[in-house]
Order: sequence, then structure tokens, then C-alpha cells
Amino acid sequence: MRIVGIRRTGAPAVEVADLDPDAGTVAVIAPLDEFWADARAHLARPAAGPTIPREDVELVPPVLPGARVICIGLNYLKHVAEGSFSETGIPPYPTLFARWTQSLTVDGAEVPVPANEDGIDWEGEVVAYVGDTLADADPDTALAAVVGYSAFNDLTSRKAQKLTSQWILGKNGDRSGPLGPLVPAAEVGDLRDGLRVRTRVNGETVQDGRTDQMVYTVGDTLSLISHTFTLRPGDLLATGTPSGVGYARTPPWLLHPGDVVEVEVERIGTIRNPIVAR
Amino acid sequence: MRIVGIRRTGAPAVEVADLDPDAGTVAVIAPLDEFWADARAHLARPAAGPTIPREDVELVPPVLPGARVICIGLNYLKHVAEGSFSETGIPPYPTLFARWTQSLTVDGAEVPVPANEDGIDWEGEVVAYVGDTLADADPDTALAAVVGYSAFNDLTSRKAQKLTSQWILGKNGDRSGPLGPLVPAAEVGDLRDGLRVRTRVNGETVQDGRTDQMVYTVGDTLSLISHTFTLRPGDLLATGTPSGVGYARTPPWLLHPGDVVEVEVERIGTIRNPIVAR
Repeated sequence: MRIVGIRRTGAPAVEVADLDPDAGTVAVIAPLDEFWADARAHLARPAAGPTIPREDVELVPPVLPGARVICIGLNYLKHVAEGSFSETGIPPYPTLFARWTQSLTVDGAEVPVPANEDGIDWEGEVVAYVGDTLADADPDTALAAVVGYSAFNDLTSRKAQKLTSQWILGKNGDRSGPLGPLVPAAEVGDLRDGLRVRTRVNGETVQDGRTDQMVYTVGDTLSLISHTFTLRPGDLLATGTPSGVGYARTPPWLLHPGDVVEVEVERIGTIRNPIVAR
Repeated sequence: MRIVGIRRTGAPAVEVADLDPDAGTVAVIAPLDEFWADARAHLARPAAGPTIPREDVELVPPVLPGARVICIGLNYLKHVAEGSFSETGIPPYPTLFARWTQSLTVDGAEVPVPANEDGIDWEGEVVAYVGDTLADADPDTALAAVVGYSAFNDLTSRKAQKLTSQWILGKNGDRSGPLGPLVPAAEVGDLRDGLRVRTRVNGETVQDGRTDQMVYTVGDTLSLISHTFTLRPGDLLATGTPSGVGYARTPPWLLHPGDVVEVEVERIGTIRNPIVAR
């Protein structure tokens, strides 16, 4: 299954559907709220709604507006070593920052470079979707609550990110978080198997890591979070990016209008987004 | 006007209403989405919907689930001086961190102390509501887009906040963001007039500042943000807390189950929340 959000022409409400890229169709599963009320059950059976041509719907993230998009920074050793935090070493806990869902977009969407930035930087990664309520959960329970994964590009406005000690301004640019279709966890298996994560800019590979290189696993991180706040179905965890980001290069390399950036994750899929002027 | 969110018994949808605390009633204005589609107009005329006894509705924040709750840290000089960032001095830009709307609650709600915390800390402040779309806005335009203000308590899990360089885990505890009714900007005037902001714990005053002591104004901060991402109607800006927080005291003083914390803001109102065990 390739789970996407859709808006049918003339209908404001978002529904969740199963995308068939070969047939060029989407099969409707349920309204967004209903899907997340029991995501596990919806992912375990074929879509029961109508099948619609892909071009008759707008694709949107299959994400609740109020979902939390929790992101891990500094989760691959070589990325820690290449960046601004290299002198402080591996952080003792996962470094968590926030995106709001309004920054999310989909495969194919044009991503603008914000005002006052020299360009935007790529961060290819995997995002996990929480399907259950988790409070004070242990790591195994937390991992078992994950119902799916998507490829994700945590596109970053580096100037805004580094204005102060806190990163979130530079992590929430308009359409700066393209998210691929959700692939059910049962089809993906375990990130600890080491899924290859690659980012390409205009066809050139700039990041090439494996998910078994993460310092903090999905289960450990969701468990930690659940001891401070209750995770809800539909919340997302972005698991951090491997080494090879643009700002840490000599000379720095950022994305400009006209560039195309792709993130490919083994078993999960590829997203491809053109960069445009604001 | 004292604008609140309400849920009528048996109705899942949130509506916006005008609370009359003396009469013990709420006058319904509009469904939440409709209110934020033209907040300025709704605030300029009396509520047109039915008047309902206060006890027949559940009060909730008048906040869209997908709204961004953008918070300024370190915005009062004496608070910068008392805390962990005293050695680095006044940051050159507003230090922005994120809350998700799921952390918000209302006046009177019980706030739990998360697991693994010794208690939670108070941060009394004022929150501003954005009523217009703002992209690359100048400070005057940005300030003119503010349609209202609420008293706010940015209750903080200090251990979680300080696990790593990024604060957001400790800033999103369950029900850790009590928000008072929205008071229209036309009734409040300008924060630069110096509205008194006081926090009391079990009746004892622990913070006493004035909004003209802010380093970064609402207009300047919203303008800065709007150059990285487009602000939308319903987004919130929490403007930072004066000095007097608990963790910076000798000895530290945190809130425990049984304590009651109040935030009172001149012209805007008072919120009062009991602390409970998780």
C-alpha cells in the first residue's frame, strides 16, 4: 500500500487513499479522522471506497492538522561530526525539535527558498507514524505502535535555523517538509535492518546512509517522548539525517531555484521536489 | 468580549463563543474554522448565535488544531539574566521555540506533572493571535494583524527541556499550556503601554513584570517569522516570560501536585490552574 491524503475536486475534506502509481489511480479508504482513529485496521484490509483517477484528486499529506511532527537532529554519527555540533559530540539524548504540520507537503511539490536565505539545505530521512496512544511506554511498546513509514526531506533554512540557540524557525519554511506516501510497517520491516537512505541533487548523490546507523532508535525515542507527553495516533517522528548535508561542505552547497532534490529510501520509496523562487 | 472555544454536549465540533462570566453564559459566534476565516469581522459585532449556560458546554482553547504556537524565550532582560543563558547575554534575535496545539488547555484545567520531573515550572506571559495572512511583512503590518491577546502559562518540564540543546520536549507536556479567553486587540490596546504580568503560586506573587520590558516586540517578531514562513489566521505568538521563574531560584522552587498557579495580565484577565499527579 502507498497511503496518501487526497482532496477530491470541490470537496474541502481530506480523505486517505491507497495510491497505485502504475494504474494512475487512488482507492479511497476513509476520511482522515476516521483513518487515524483505527489506522492499524485500515492498513490491514484493502481500500473499500471508490477508485478514482490520480489526476482527479489533489495529493496532500495523510496527516492530521493537529499531529505533532517531532524531529530528531544529530542522529547519525557522521552527521554529528560534520556540523556545528561536532565539538560537543554525541548528545546524551535524542535532540528533538518541532515542525508544525503546515510545513508539510508532498512528493512533486515545488519548494520555495525563503526570503533572506542563500538557498535551502537538504536532509533526507525516514519518518515514522504513531498509530496508538503512548504514555510512559517502554521502547518495545513504542516501536510496536508504529504503523508506517515515509520518505521525508527535512529541507532547512540554515540562516533562520542558526539565528539563535533554537532551530525551529529554519525548520518550518513553507512547503519545506515533503513527505512521501506512508508504507505500512508490515511491508517495511525494521529500520534496524539498515535501509539505505540516499539524497540526490540534480541526479548527483549527496547523502548515502543506512538506518541502522542511527544513534537513537524509533522505539527508544518514542518511549522517551511518551514520558513527557502522551503521543496520539497520527503523530510523526522524523528520524534524522545521515551525513552529507550542504551547509557543512567546503564550499557550502545549497539548493537554488531550478534545482531538483530527491530522497530515496529502500522499501519505502522516492520523493522528488523542484526548488523555486519565493 | 471574552472569546472561548466550546464543545456543546454531544457535539464533537468546536465552536467559538463569547463568555459572560458574570451571567454564567456563553453566546455562540461561529464554528471554529469560520471564526478564523474572518476573525476581525466576528470580533467587531455581537455574537449572533444562541446564549447557553456555561455549565452546559466544555471550554476548550479557541485555537485551530493546525495553528502554530510560536513562543519567544528570553524576551525579558531580567529573565535572561536569571537563567541558564545568562552568560551568553541578550540573544541578537528572538529565540523562538515551538508548542503544538495539543499541549494547550484552558483556565481551571488540572495540569499533571510528567513522569521523571521533580515538578513543573511557571512562566506567566501574554499570547497574541494572528488574524491575517502575513508573508514578508514589515513590523507595523505584522502588529496590525494581531486580533487579540490571552493570558498564558508556559508551564515547563525543566528536566526534559534541558536534556539536549533544543527545548521543545519540555515545552509540550500534556495540558501544560493553559490559555485564557481571547480579548480583542481593540480592548487591550498596545503591549508597549506596559501591561502588568503577574504570576502567583498558592497566592504568593512569584513574577511581576510589564509588557513594555520585552526585548522583542510582537510586531518585530511576527515580521521576522513571516520572512521564513507564511503566518496564517489563527497562529499564536507567546511573548515570553518576565523574571522570577522557579528553577532559577535558590533553592529551586517547582510546582507540585496540590499547588495552584495563577497568571494575571492587566486588561486581559487571570487564569488559575491546579497542579496534579500524572
